[in-house]
Amino acid sequence: VSARIESDRLRVVLVATRNPLNIGAAARAMSNFGFLHLRVVNPYEPSFREARSAVGASQVLREAEQFHSVADAIADCTLVVGTTSVGRRELQHPVRSLDQAGPLLRKRLASSRVALLFGSEKVGLSNEDLSHCHWLLRVPTRQEHRSLNLAQAVAICLYELSRGGKMPAPGTRSGTARGKKMAASASELERIGALLLDALSASDYFPSASPGHHEEKLRRLIRRLNFSASDAEIWLGMLRKIVWRLEHGGKTAD
Amino acid sequence: VSARIESDRLRVVLVATRNPLNIGAAARAMSNFGFLHLRVVNPYEPSFREARSAVGASQVLREAEQFHSVADAIADCTLVVGTTSVGRRELQHPVRSLDQAGPLLRKRLASSRVALLFGSEKVGLSNEDLSHCHWLLRVPTRQEHRSLNLAQAVAICLYELSRGGKMPAPGTRSGTARGKKMAASASELERIGALLLDALSASDYFPSASPGHHEEKLRRLIRRLNFSASDAEIWLGMLRKIVWRLEHGGKTAD
Repeated sequence: VSARIESDRLRVVLVATRNPLNIGAAARAMSNFGFLHLRVVNPYEPSFREARSAVGASQVLREAEQFHSVADAIADCTLVVGTTSVGRRELQHPVRSLDQAGPLLRKRLASSRVALLFGSEKVGLSNEDLSHCHWLLRVPTRQEHRSLNLAQAVAICLYELSRGGKMPAPGTRSGTARGKKMAASASELERIGALLLDALSASDYFPSASPGHHEEKLRRLIRRLNFSASDAEIWLGMLRKIVWRLEHGGKTAD
Repeated sequence: VSARIESDRLRVVLVATRNPLNIGAAARAMSNFGFLHLRVVNPYEPSFREARSAVGASQVLREAEQFHSVADAIADCTLVVGTTSVGRRELQHPVRSLDQAGPLLRKRLASSRVALLFGSEKVGLSNEDLSHCHWLLRVPTRQEHRSLNLAQAVAICLYELSRGGKMPAPGTRSGTARGKKMAASASELERIGALLLDALSASDYFPSASPGHHEEKLRRLIRRLNFSASDAEIWLGMLRKIVWRLEHGGKTAD
């Protein structure tokens, strides 16, 4: 519930965006991560609200607020953070990497509104835009190719913002699937080993006649895999069939 | 330097992508984060290499490898991870959230190749595609609007992968015993699956006649175990012997 309220306090501000498809794609990412308040400053294309790229996020676009200046767009926010792809050209501002910025943004969102500014595709935020910012945020990209697609930058920032938060994971915690599975018991593994030994013996797999030794090797071999109890059941069934067939003659026995 | 080498081991695999602009945008994100090896399986639009959305990443597109099957595209990888937007429909696979997946992927990249699969825009990865995966990865999005834009999903995953920065040294901490050994490659696992299928068919294990379905189930069954490359070799040898015996009549054939 509190994560909901916090994401409700963020304002994503797109400044002088040229391609309306980028506005739509940004809206989609916002909706994906539960940040629903878009603000648009002087978009190049006034018809951005119809951008088809806003798959599933038409409401975000419809309810987007439009402004004629950055000053107006951020007036009700207590923290204004600009995004930049350049390193530290603007020494006037502290530049934080996104993973450093995340906790700071979340902390502020716990109590008041935060604006996250994204400049135009070509030139980013102007010095005038930047002058409204408390500090700058940079997604760490490769020095040789720094400039992210606008909507991808929005998506990555919002992923990071929702990341730390205990945003309600759908269903239960992921990753439980594996943990949830009961591991096979030693006796099940032992039965797999015994059947495998039978199958291999019937197939003349072992060159020499020292079954004890082979048994140990098979045991270790099987323990190195990680059988769940349910999978062990399946393997036992398969091996039983194979052994039965081996002992009663192949289908194409000659 | 070592982070460079590790990112060099990732293969981003786009399966049956419909919109070439998404391939281009994914290539751009790859270049931004320093993952330069793109593989494309049956793209809807053969002319994807000219996608204008690959701003600054034309080399990634130019050098992209094209395949006719997922099996071929992942053959040289030891870990195959599929991306999904759904919660837990596929109970056959463990589903990990991206932040849980990151360290696991980085650990494996420290020693061998990893494939990260992204399905088509409309339907994602098919069950056949999923059967090649060891586990699944989900970017945690809002339950009400789960489906991410394809290229944004790629961008977010690669951001998370490059995020850790100081990728963990190979063979540290948990699972050393497992990590120490080279994992089996997808093609080795595929051969195990094929031999097992032969053995089971010869043993009348399958009640009905739908081999494709069985193949998928076996593929998943095998991926759930953790075969090392050396153990895979042993299992292949054992299965070969068993299959040969089954096809040439059991010792005690009656």
